[in-house]
Amino acid sequence: MSLALQLAEKGRFTTHPNPRVGCVLVKDDQVIGQGWHHQAGQPHAEINALADAKAQGNATEGATAYVTLEPCSHHGRTGPCCQALAKAKVVRVVAAMQDPNPQVAGKGLGYLQNQGIITTSGVQQAAARALNVGFLSRMEKGRPWIRLKLAMSLDGRTAMDNGQSKWITSAAARADVQRMRAEADAILTATGTLLADDPKLDVRDEGAFQLPELHRQPLRVIVDSKLQTPHQARIFESNGQVLIASAIKGEHPQAEVVQLPQQNSQRVDLIRLMDLLGQREINQIHVEAGPVLAASLLKAGLVDELVVYMAAKLMGNTARGLFDLPELQQMADAIDLQIQDIRAIGKDWRITATVL
Amino acid sequence: MSLALQLAEKGRFTTHPNPRVGCVLVKDDQVIGQGWHHQAGQPHAEINALADAKAQGNATEGATAYVTLEPCSHHGRTGPCCQALAKAKVVRVVAAMQDPNPQVAGKGLGYLQNQGIITTSGVQQAAARALNVGFLSRMEKGRPWIRLKLAMSLDGRTAMDNGQSKWITSAAARADVQRMRAEADAILTATGTLLADDPKLDVRDEGAFQLPELHRQPLRVIVDSKLQTPHQARIFESNGQVLIASAIKGEHPQAEVVQLPQQNSQRVDLIRLMDLLGQREINQIHVEAGPVLAASLLKAGLVDELVVYMAAKLMGNTARGLFDLPELQQMADAIDLQIQDIRAIGKDWRITATVL
Repeated sequence: MSLALQLAEKGRFTTHPNPRVGCVLVKDDQVIGQGWHHQAGQPHAEINALADAKAQGNATEGATAYVTLEPCSHHGRTGPCCQALAKAKVVRVVAAMQDPNPQVAGKGLGYLQNQGIITTSGVQQAAARALNVGFLSRMEKGRPWIRLKLAMSLDGRTAMDNGQSKWITSAAARADVQRMRAEADAILTATGTLLADDPKLDVRDEGAFQLPELHRQPLRVIVDSKLQTPHQARIFESNGQVLIASAIKGEHPQAEVVQLPQQNSQRVDLIRLMDLLGQREINQIHVEAGPVLAASLLKAGLVDELVVYMAAKLMGNTARGLFDLPELQQMADAIDLQIQDIRAIGKDWRITATVL
Repeated sequence: MSLALQLAEKGRFTTHPNPRVGCVLVKDDQVIGQGWHHQAGQPHAEINALADAKAQGNATEGATAYVTLEPCSHHGRTGPCCQALAKAKVVRVVAAMQDPNPQVAGKGLGYLQNQGIITTSGVQQAAARALNVGFLSRMEKGRPWIRLKLAMSLDGRTAMDNGQSKWITSAAARADVQRMRAEADAILTATGTLLADDPKLDVRDEGAFQLPELHRQPLRVIVDSKLQTPHQARIFESNGQVLIASAIKGEHPQAEVVQLPQQNSQRVDLIRLMDLLGQREINQIHVEAGPVLAASLLKAGLVDELVVYMAAKLMGNTARGLFDLPELQQMADAIDLQIQDIRAIGKDWRITATVL
């Protein structure tokens, strides 16, 4: 299963909207075939593993298949994997987890059992879930998994008073950010950030990070309540689509505009936006934005992971902070986090946390 | 020498104003005596090691003495250790470092050489220097070594807008702070902190921290430009002395007042204060103060080590920050740090940094 998880990992940047899946076929304690899912529309991991066994001249009859996700039972873009496994006469299927996709959800394992195949589920389940946080969020909550990325000085400042913020962190941290952007199906920002910094917000080679093969630019999503995104913004320079979520009705020559006003307010309803993005098969969102959108996402319960790059410098209290949360007045109001990881990235430090 | 350093470490909380020193006597590859300096006025490490050898019935003739600091040659509170080592007929003395005290400064090793004893210096010097940062700062710079302790949320906030700051960090972090206070000869704060929080700023048992034997309360020093420290402040409740540094002339019923005005300003001259504390044999200062004194120390080049306890919570931009540094306007003005260590202390994280 560990090998299957490693194989699945190879699809990290390319499988969306599908999950990342790996499969290993074992017979007589030997690996006789392995495969992973590369890209939506292409064969699933199981089919690739069976083809690999065949290409090596290995007979699959009597083999055990280790898969990181329950094999599919439905006809999607490709035929069901369960049928292929049964046809290949495997005798046992070990899955790391059930597929939460309501079209599968136990039906794959059920089908295999009906064919007289021994099935097991739940082996290394936590690792398998971690591999597909985005897909699982979309299937289980109907919305994408959202990672909020911030950069700050040691004293918690993200920009000088004049708005200057280039570069708080080092090239190594920026390369790491490219990797995080590449994992996401969509990159979310706010008009304020575009007006202040005019970032491209695309995925590109940077330092140690090289654009993965088969990778497509993520959808860029702009929260733009008053529809003020400039037509010449650099975000429109890269390939890939841009979606503007606005509180008012309107059009934009460079992007699709969706109107999602909050009730009784001039702002965008972020929960409705996330539902919409879930419907559009966006699994994972990477957010780079200022203290207003960061705070709004936090308050709406829409931050699944917080990643803060901390630079070894001090910027002072006049500089700008991370979250505009004026409603926090007492110590008891403070938002509790769980720190998952702290590690050095070049000369900066990356703090990964979840909201409790 | 590693054993001698470990022995020296036992005096961490008690030797001031003297340095922490350890000594090991070795003969025929056997440790025949060991000692460390416990407290000023009591025997030095070498004398204790010689006494230990004698108590065990071990002859010191022909032995090698490993000491973490050059043996003293002057008559201070005790007789010179060099004479004692020569009288004990040791044949070799290995010192981790020369004594920077101008009364010694190579004279100890010189004396030993004149007695026909082989001497070596510089073995594990970095570790020996780390053991006595305070003593070395006082000898080399004429001022104490200064550690600034701060506590903050992950987003760099140290108190809510209403001043509330209890408790950002956990009990484990507070016990760690007691250990840091206990290491220091003086604890420095500002009137603002006394007026806001009224802390005792003493050293006391707290959680896993137990008051070391022989420990005395550090001198408490209050930067109080306008002499506003309340007579009933809790800082006066503990044993030990309190010194008030003021910009104006005056008296206080509970403390000695020294007048140290900055030229052309109503504030205390911090550099003159540190010179004065150096003259009073203060090796190491522990600072717990607000954003004004923290920034002033930083600007005066008086922060040798910054220790920041970071709690896994968010307090928002309305809450107060660490350093009032309005003069930092451009990214290029940011103060560069070198992070020395980041580690978990209970559920908080402790970041140790130096100023570049």
